[in-house]
Amino acid sequence: MTFPDPFADLAAALSSDARPTETEGVRIDSSRRARTGAPEFVYGKGKSAEQIAAALRRLLEFEGRALAALVDADQIGAIELLLSELNVALTHDPVGRTLVASVANSVPPCMGGRVGLISAGSSDRPQISEAATVLQEMGCETRSVHDVGVAGLHRLVSPMRYMIAFDPDALIVAAGMDGVLPGVISGLVSIPIVALPTSTGYGFGGEGLGAMTTMLQACAPGIAVVNIDNGIGAGVMAGLIANRAASQRSS
Amino acid sequence: MTFPDPFADLAAALSSDARPTETEGVRIDSSRRARTGAPEFVYGKGKSAEQIAAALRRLLEFEGRALAALVDADQIGAIELLLSELNVALTHDPVGRTLVASVANSVPPCMGGRVGLISAGSSDRPQISEAATVLQEMGCETRSVHDVGVAGLHRLVSPMRYMIAFDPDALIVAAGMDGVLPGVISGLVSIPIVALPTSTGYGFGGEGLGAMTTMLQACAPGIAVVNIDNGIGAGVMAGLIANRAASQRSS
Amino acid sequence: MTFPDPFADLAAALSSDARPTETEGVRIDSSRRARTGAPEFVYGKGKSAEQIAAALRRLLEFEGRALAALVDADQIGAIELLLSELNVALTHDPVGRTLVASVANSVPPCMGGRVGLISAGSSDRPQISEAATVLQEMGCETRSVHDVGVAGLHRLVSPMRYMIAFDPDALIVAAGMDGVLPGVISGLVSIPIVALPTSTGYGFGGEGLGAMTTMLQACAPGIAVVNIDNGIGAGVMAGLIANRAASQRSS
Amino acid sequence: MTFPDPFADLAAALSSDARPTETEGVRIDSSRRARTGAPEFVYGKGKSAEQIAAALRRLLEFEGRALAALVDADQIGAIELLLSELNVALTHDPVGRTLVASVANSVPPCMGGRVGLISAGSSDRPQISEAATVLQEMGCETRSVHDVGVAGLHRLVSPMRYMIAFDPDALIVAAGMDGVLPGVISGLVSIPIVALPTSTGYGFGGEGLGAMTTMLQACAPGIAVVNIDNGIGAGVMAGLIANRAASQRSS
Amino acid sequence: MTFPDPFADLAAALSSDARPTETEGVRIDSSRRARTGAPEFVYGKGKSAEQIAAALRRLLEFEGRALAALVDADQIGAIELLLSELNVALTHDPVGRTLVASVANSVPPCMGGRVGLISAGSSDRPQISEAATVLQEMGCETRSVHDVGVAGLHRLVSPMRYMIAFDPDALIVAAGMDGVLPGVISGLVSIPIVALPTSTGYGFGGEGLGAMTTMLQACAPGIAVVNIDNGIGAGVMAGLIANRAASQRSS
Amino acid sequence: MTFPDPFADLAAALSSDARPTETEGVRIDSSRRARTGAPEFVYGKGKSAEQIAAALRRLLEFEGRALAALVDADQIGAIELLLSELNVALTHDPVGRTLVASVANSVPPCMGGRVGLISAGSSDRPQISEAATVLQEMGCETRSVHDVGVAGLHRLVSPMRYMIAFDPDALIVAAGMDGVLPGVISGLVSIPIVALPTSTGYGFGGEGLGAMTTMLQACAPGIAVVNIDNGIGAGVMAGLIANRAASQRSS
Amino acid sequence: MTFPDPFADLAAALSSDARPTETEGVRIDSSRRARTGAPEFVYGKGKSAEQIAAALRRLLEFEGRALAALVDADQIGAIELLLSELNVALTHDPVGRTLVASVANSVPPCMGGRVGLISAGSSDRPQISEAATVLQEMGCETRSVHDVGVAGLHRLVSPMRYMIAFDPDALIVAAGMDGVLPGVISGLVSIPIVALPTSTGYGFGGEGLGAMTTMLQACAPGIAVVNIDNGIGAGVMAGLIANRAASQRSS
Amino acid sequence: MTFPDPFADLAAALSSDARPTETEGVRIDSSRRARTGAPEFVYGKGKSAEQIAAALRRLLEFEGRALAALVDADQIGAIELLLSELNVALTHDPVGRTLVASVANSVPPCMGGRVGLISAGSSDRPQISEAATVLQEMGCETRSVHDVGVAGLHRLVSPMRYMIAFDPDALIVAAGMDGVLPGVISGLVSIPIVALPTSTGYGFGGEGLGAMTTMLQACAPGIAVVNIDNGIGAGVMAGLIANRAASQRSS
Repeated sequence: MTFPDPFADLAAALSSDARPTETEGVRIDSSRRARTGAPEFVYGKGKSAEQIAAALRRLLEFEGRALAALVDADQIGAIELLLSELNVALTHDPVGRTLVASVANSVPPCMGGRVGLISAGSSDRPQISEAATVLQEMGCETRSVHDVGVAGLHRLVSPMRYMIAFDPDALIVAAGMDGVLPGVISGLVSIPIVALPTSTGYGFGGEGLGAMTTMLQACAPGIAVVNIDNGIGAGVMAGLIANRAASQRSS
Repeated sequence: MTFPDPFADLAAALSSDARPTETEGVRIDSSRRARTGAPEFVYGKGKSAEQIAAALRRLLEFEGRALAALVDADQIGAIELLLSELNVALTHDPVGRTLVASVANSVPPCMGGRVGLISAGSSDRPQISEAATVLQEMGCETRSVHDVGVAGLHRLVSPMRYMIAFDPDALIVAAGMDGVLPGVISGLVSIPIVALPTSTGYGFGGEGLGAMTTMLQACAPGIAVVNIDNGIGAGVMAGLIANRAASQRSS
Repeated sequence: MTFPDPFADLAAALSSDARPTETEGVRIDSSRRARTGAPEFVYGKGKSAEQIAAALRRLLEFEGRALAALVDADQIGAIELLLSELNVALTHDPVGRTLVASVANSVPPCMGGRVGLISAGSSDRPQISEAATVLQEMGCETRSVHDVGVAGLHRLVSPMRYMIAFDPDALIVAAGMDGVLPGVISGLVSIPIVALPTSTGYGFGGEGLGAMTTMLQACAPGIAVVNIDNGIGAGVMAGLIANRAASQRSS
Repeated sequence: MTFPDPFADLAAALSSDARPTETEGVRIDSSRRARTGAPEFVYGKGKSAEQIAAALRRLLEFEGRALAALVDADQIGAIELLLSELNVALTHDPVGRTLVASVANSVPPCMGGRVGLISAGSSDRPQISEAATVLQEMGCETRSVHDVGVAGLHRLVSPMRYMIAFDPDALIVAAGMDGVLPGVISGLVSIPIVALPTSTGYGFGGEGLGAMTTMLQACAPGIAVVNIDNGIGAGVMAGLIANRAASQRSS
Repeated sequence: MTFPDPFADLAAALSSDARPTETEGVRIDSSRRARTGAPEFVYGKGKSAEQIAAALRRLLEFEGRALAALVDADQIGAIELLLSELNVALTHDPVGRTLVASVANSVPPCMGGRVGLISAGSSDRPQISEAATVLQEMGCETRSVHDVGVAGLHRLVSPMRYMIAFDPDALIVAAGMDGVLPGVISGLVSIPIVALPTSTGYGFGGEGLGAMTTMLQACAPGIAVVNIDNGIGAGVMAGLIANRAASQRSS
Repeated sequence: MTFPDPFADLAAALSSDARPTETEGVRIDSSRRARTGAPEFVYGKGKSAEQIAAALRRLLEFEGRALAALVDADQIGAIELLLSELNVALTHDPVGRTLVASVANSVPPCMGGRVGLISAGSSDRPQISEAATVLQEMGCETRSVHDVGVAGLHRLVSPMRYMIAFDPDALIVAAGMDGVLPGVISGLVSIPIVALPTSTGYGFGGEGLGAMTTMLQACAPGIAVVNIDNGIGAGVMAGLIANRAASQRSS
Repeated sequence: MTFPDPFADLAAALSSDARPTETEGVRIDSSRRARTGAPEFVYGKGKSAEQIAAALRRLLEFEGRALAALVDADQIGAIELLLSELNVALTHDPVGRTLVASVANSVPPCMGGRVGLISAGSSDRPQISEAATVLQEMGCETRSVHDVGVAGLHRLVSPMRYMIAFDPDALIVAAGMDGVLPGVISGLVSIPIVALPTSTGYGFGGEGLGAMTTMLQACAPGIAVVNIDNGIGAGVMAGLIANRAASQRSS
Repeated sequence: MTFPDPFADLAAALSSDARPTETEGVRIDSSRRARTGAPEFVYGKGKSAEQIAAALRRLLEFEGRALAALVDADQIGAIELLLSELNVALTHDPVGRTLVASVANSVPPCMGGRVGLISAGSSDRPQISEAATVLQEMGCETRSVHDVGVAGLHRLVSPMRYMIAFDPDALIVAAGMDGVLPGVISGLVSIPIVALPTSTGYGFGGEGLGAMTTMLQACAPGIAVVNIDNGIGAGVMAGLIANRAASQRSS
C-alpha cells in the first residue's frame, strides 16, 4: 500500500484531550501535505496584508515554504515588512498573483510529475501562472504554451507537438469565452485533461460560465473541470495525477 | 431599389375601413412572402389535427403551397382526411416533422440561393431537416453533411471540402452538447454561418443551453445564432442571405 | 469554386517542423483575413496600453492596417507614443471605442458589401459604432439611422424608407431594454437581420438579457443573434453576408 | 369615501372567540368579493373532482355563483354528479378551462367596467378565455380580438380600431414567444394595459419567460405584468381598473 | 369614442416624404402625450449632463415641460448652465432623482386622477418619489404613506385608513426584501394595485428579484407588476388607471 | 453535559478492523437516533417496492420502528407482502406519502416536544403531513391548522389563537405561491419558525422557488428555511428544537 | 399559555383613531421585542450616518438599547456626534459591523438561552460576529469556535468537544465555498442547527449560492437555513430557539 | 515520447481525396482508441433499437468490442435480434444501462490502471456502474464501495481503508443531494478524485445542480468534476489517469 493512513490525524485528535487553541482564529492543517499530497495555502482574497502575513507565519512553523494565492502587488511591501524578522525569501508572481515564502535554502520537494499547461488566449495567463506555482510547490515539472486558440486550427500544431514531446502525465487547459480548447485537445491525445475555465467573454455566459458549460458538455471525454479561475484547484488536481504517475516510475 | 415598399401593407390597412373578420381566430398574413421573402407557416406544436388542417386551408387560399412545422406522424392521417376535398398533395418529413401541402403542379419559386447544412451529430438531424424544408419552400438549393463532430478533427476534412465545392452562399451548422462545431468552421471559411443549437447534452447546460452559449461566445466571429431547435428560424435566415446573393447573380 | 482551401493553413502547419515561438505570449493568425474574410483584431478589454500596442505592432507586420476593440480614450496617448516609431496613423472612435492603426496610404480593401445599421435608442450607439468600424475594415459600405424605437411606430417610417433606398445586403439592428426592434423590422423586409442586443434595461432581464431573449424568440423569422454588446461579432457576420452578395454582383 | 373599511373583517375576527372550524381543510373567505371586488375562486390544478366539488359547494353557501379555474374537461362529469342535489347550472369553458356553478336565476352583478382582450396568437386563447370568465363574474363587459401579431404590423389596424370603438377602461394583452404586442400597443393608446405572458416559445426563454421579460422591459410605459399564464390574475386586475372607472361613470 | 385615433401619427408619417433628420441622434416622439397619455421623458442613466440637457431642450420644443429620470445631483449644476438661456425653471428631487424643466408659468395639465403611494420601508422612498413626479406631470393628485411593513401588521392600520379616506383610483405599493406588502394590501381593498419591487434584500433573491417574484406569485389577485426600481413605469400605469377613472367622473 | 459524545461512533469505527460488508448496497446508520435525535429513514423516491422493503427490513433490525418517505399508495401492497413474515404493522399516510413499519406493541419514544403545524393553503397539506409523521416518530406532540392564507388576514385570528393556546416550542409554517405566511406569523409571535416552501405557483418562481425566496428574504427575523417540499427536514428541525425545550422542562 | 396575545397590537391599532404620524418616514415597531422576542434594529446598508443616527434615536425612545447592523467604521464618528446629547454609550464591532447604543447602566435582559457559534473559515467571522451581537441583545449566552473546516476532519474534534461541553440549546454554523460544515455537524449531534451561508467562493456558485444550496440539500436533517450573510437572521432564529429552551429551564 | 502523433489522422485526411461517405448518417471515428486512449461509444439516449444496433455494427467493423450507453432493458431483445447474424455476445448492465457487444473470445486490452469507485448513496449506483463498464473496456481494474454517506462520518472508515488497500491510481466519487462526499475524501487522501454529481435532491438545486456546485466549490483541492450523471465521462477521465500511471509501472 503506497498511501498513508487517511484517518491517522483523526485518530490522533480523538485520543488527545487538547482544548481548541485560538491563534488569530486560524486553525492550520499542519499535516495536509503528508495526508493529501498538496500544501496548505493562504487564500488571500479579501484578506489584509496583516492577515496574510500572519497566516504565512503560521504555515512556516510547520514547513520551510508557504504559499498564498490571490495576493495583490500592492500588499507585497507590507507583507515583506511584517515577515522581515523571519529571514524568509518572498517570491511574488504579479501575473498569477501568488506569493511564496521560503526559509533560506528551502526548495520544494521533487516529486517528478510532469504537467503541461496550455492557454487558449493571452487573457488566460493569470490562471495558468497560478496553477504553475502550485505545481512547482508540489514538486512537479511544467511546460507551458500560450494563445493556442481554435479560431485558427493550424495554430494548434506546433504547440501541441512541442507539448507532446515533453511527455506530460497530465494537461491543464485554460480557456475563456467559448471554452472550446480542452475538448478539441481531448479529441487528439490520451492525456488526462484538467479543464480550467476563465472569467472572460461577452455578456451572456460571460464571466466564465459559458466556458465552464462547454467543458462540462465536451463531446470528447477525458476531461474534468474545476471552477472558474480556480488555478490552484487545477494545479493540485493535475499535480496529484502527475505525481501518482511519477511515483510509479520511480517504484 | 430592389426591395418592395415595407409599409405598403400598412398603408393599405390604414386606408381600408374593414372590420376584423373572425375566421377560426387565425389572421393569415397573406402578403408575408412578398414582403419578407419567407412563407407564412403553421406552428403545429400543441395544435390538434383540426387546427393544423384549418390553418393550412387558410394558407392555401393565398398560395399554392403551405407549410406546417412540428407536426407529428400520427396527425397526418387526420389532416389528410380533413383536406381531402382540396386536392392537395401532402409531404410529411418524419425526421424534421414538417408537412408541406401543395396544390397540383405547384412547385416552390426558384430563387437560386445555395445553403449548406452541417450537423455535428446524428441527433441534430431533425433540426437540419426542418431547416432544409423551409429552404426548399424559399426556393433555395441545399447540400447536407452529417455527423461532423470535432471530437475527431480529421472527420471535418472531406465533408468540408465537399461542402466548399458546392459554393454555398450561407451555412447552417447545427450542434448540441458543447456546440463547438460552428465556431471551428467559422475559423476556416468566409461563409456566413447561422448557428443552430440543438437540445441535447448532459445535466448542466443540457437541453441546448450549453450549445447556445458556446455559439454566442464563439471566438471566431462570422456567426449568428437562432434559438434552440429553431430549424425554421435558421432556415429562413440562411435562405434570406442566400437568396439575396442569388439575386445579385442574376441581376 | 469561389472559396480558398479551408485547410491550407493546417496542411502547411502539419508539414512544417517549426517550434512554437514565444512573442509576448501572442500567436497572431496572420492569414485570418484571407481564410475567413474578416481581419484579426485586438480585444482591448482588460489589456494595458503596452499590451494593446504590442499586439497592434504584431498585426501590422502582416497587414497595413490593424484594429483594436474596447480601447478607452485614456489609453490612446500611451499607445500613440509606443507606436510612434512605426509611422502609422491612429484613428480612435470614442463612441465605439475602436482604434484603427494604418500605415501611410493604406486603405481597407473595397469588397462592395452594403450594410445598414439601425439603433433602437441613443444608448445603442456605441455598439453600432463598433460594428461600423469593423465593416469599414472589411471593405463594406454602411448607412446608419438612430433612435428608431417602436414606442412610437410612426418613427420607423422615414428611417426605414431611407434605409431601403440604400439597397442593403444585410441589416444590423441594435436594441436594449425589450429588444423589440429587430423583430418588428424583420416583419417588414426580406433583408437578413443580424440582431445585436445591448446591455441596457431595468433590473430583471437588464444588462441585455431581456433584449437578447426577445430576439431569440422573435415571431418574425429572418433574424439571427450575436451576444450582448458584441458589435464586432455583428459587424463581421453582416460583413460576410454583404461581401458574399457583392462578390456575386461583380462576378 | 367609496371603499368599505378594509379592516372590518379583521376587527370582527378579533372580537369573536370562535375556534377554528375544520371543514375539509378549506377556510373560505366569504367576504372577499365585498372587500376586494373580486370573487373567491377554486384553483383546480392538482385537485381531484371531489375536492373541486367540495370547494364549490362551500363557495355556494355564501354566494349564488362559484368559479373554478384550471378544471379539465374529463372532471366535469364527476363534478356534475357530486353537485347534482344542489340544483346548480355548470358552465365549463374547455378553452379557458374555467367552470362556473350558478344557482337558478343567478346572474353576476353588473358593475359596468369595459375590458378589451387582445391575443397575439391563437395559442394565447386559453389565457384570454380564462380572463374573460373572471371578468364576466366581476360584472364587466368584454370585447376580444385574436391573433394580432406584430410579425405583420398591418394586422393591428382593423382589430385596434374595432377595440378603440368599444371605449375600454382597460386592456388585457396576452402574448407568448417574444411577448412584443403589449409594448407596441402601449405606444399607440392611453389605455392601461395588463400584460399577460403565455407559456409558448422556443428553448431559451420559452415557457413564457422571454415574453414576461419583454413586457417587464417594455420601452413604452403604461404596462404592468401578471405571472405567466395567470389569466385569472390579469382578469381581476383589469376588472378592478374597469369597475373603478365604471363606478365614477355612474356616480 | 373617447380615445384619439391610435394610427394618426403613423398615417401622417406614411403620407409624408420627409427624410430622417439627424438631431444629435435623438428622435423625439412629440405626440406621445396626446397619443398615450404619458409624457416623453429623458432616461438619464449613463448619459452626460450635455446629453441630458440636449434631450430636455428637444422636449421643450414641443411642450412647456420636460422630465428626466435617474439624474444625479452632481449633474444639476451643469445642466442648469447648459439650459440657462432658455429661461426654464429646474426642479430636482434628490431622493427620486428626477428633474423637471418647465418654462415660465407652465403647470402640468390637471387630469384629476388620484393615486395613493405606499412604501414598505424607508429604502423604497426613491422609487416612490420617482413615481410621484411622473404622476404630477400626468396631472394626478397623490397621497403617500411610508414604512408600512408587514413585520408588524398593526402598523398597516392608520396608514391604510388614511389612504382609503383619500378615495384613490389606484395604488402603487413599493417593497423590497420579501415584497410582501402589495399582496397583503390587495387582500384588503378593491383598488387596483401597481406593485413596484425595489432592489433591496439579502444575497439570494436580493437586488429586487425576490420581491418581484413574490408579487408575481401573489395569492390575492388585483395586482400587476412593473420591473424592479421602475418608478416611472409604475407611475405611468397608475396614472393611466386614475386618469381614465377621472375622465369618467368629469364626463 | 446533556449530549452524548459526537465522536463515539467514529472512535469505535477507527478502532475496529471490520471490512465493509455489502448488504444490498445499503449501509444503515444504526446509531443515528442516539447521536442526532432523529431516526434514520428510507427515501422512497425512485426506489422499487423491493428496495423500500429491503431497507425497512434493515432498519427494523436496529429499532422497533422504521420510517419511509415518498412512498406511493400503489407500492403498499407489494411492500406488505414482502414484509409479511416480519409481523410488523404498516401505517401508510396517503396524503403525506409516509409509511411507518412497527413491530407489535412498539410506540415511538415520548420526548415531550410540542410543534405547531400551519399550512397556508390546502395544497400544502402533503408536506405538513410528512412533517407530522416524522415528528410523531421523534416523540413530539403536534397540533395542525390549515388554509391560513394571508389573502384575507382575518382568517389568521382564530387559528393562531388556537395554536398559541397549545404553547408550542416551535412552528412549521408551509406555504407555496408567494410564500408569505411564515413572515407574517413571525412578526406576531416569539416562537421559532421552520419555514417550509411547497412546490406550487404560477410560471415564474413556481415550483416553490418564489415561496422559498420570500422566506429567505423575510423582513421579520425568527425564520429559517428548509428546501422545497422537504417535509422530513422541516419535521426533524422542529422536532430537535421542541425536544430540546422539552428536555429542559423535565430536567 | 406562555406567549403574549399575538394580536394585541393589532387590536389596539384598530380601536385607535390615530392618523399616521410622519417622523422622518420611519415607523418604529415599538412593541416588537415584547411580541416577537427579538429587538427592532436599524438596517444600515445604504443609509447615511444621519439616517442611522435618527433611527437609533427613535429606537432609544422605547428601550434603553438600540442595535444597528451593517454600519461601517467610518460612520461611527458622525453617529457619535449626532447622538452626543443623548448620553448613550456606543459599541461598534468592526468585524461584525454592528453598532449598539445603550443608555447609561442599561444591560440587555438576561433570557438564559445558550447558543454555540461555529465558523468554517476565517472569512466567515463577520457573519458570526453579527449574529453574536444580536444574541447578546436577546440576552443569550454564546460560545464561539472558528476555522473548523472539513478539509481536515481531525480539526473538528477539539472544537466540537469544547462546544458540546457548553451544552448549547442551538448552534449557528457559518460556511462559505462548498458550505459543507453544517451538514457534517448535523450528522454528529442532536442540537438544532441554523445554517448561515456566507458570500465566499469561486466563480460558479460563488457569492454564497453554492454554500446555501449545499445546506438546503443537506443529507443529514436537523438543519434550517437563513439567507446568505444574514447574521442577524441567524442570530434571531437561534436566540428564539435557545430562549424558548431557557424559559422551560426556569419554569 | 510515449504518445502517438496527435495529428496523424488529420494529416492522413488532408492528403486523401475521399468524398464523404454516407453510412446511415454516422461517421465513426475508427482510430479514437489509438489516439485518445478511450473507445468510441454509442450514446443510446433518444435512439431506437435499430439506430443503436446499426451504430454498434459500425463500431464492430473496427474493433472486436463495442460499447453503448443509456440503453434501456426493453431494447435489448430487439438489438439482439438485429445483431444476431454477427455472432457477438451482448452484455447488458440494467443498473448502469450499458451494453457491450463483443465478438467471440474478444477481451478488453489490459492496461493495468486501478480505479476506485465510491458512491455516497444507493441512488448513485447507476452512474457508478456506467463508469465501471467504460473502465473495464479501457482495461482498468476497479474496486467499488457503496453508500458511504457523510451523514454518519463513521461509515467512511472501513470502506476507505478497504479502498486504500487497493492502492488505486484514481478515485471516482459519486454523490447527489449536497454532493459533500468527494470534498471530504479529498481532505483525507492524495489520490486524484473525479467527482461525479448525480441527479438527486430536493427542489432547489435538485437534479444534481446542488451536488455539482458543491464539488466545484470544494474547500479541499484535488478534485475535478464531470457533468451531472456523466458516468462515461467520469470513467474515461479516471481511466486515462490510471492507465497513464500503469504505463509508468510497466515502463
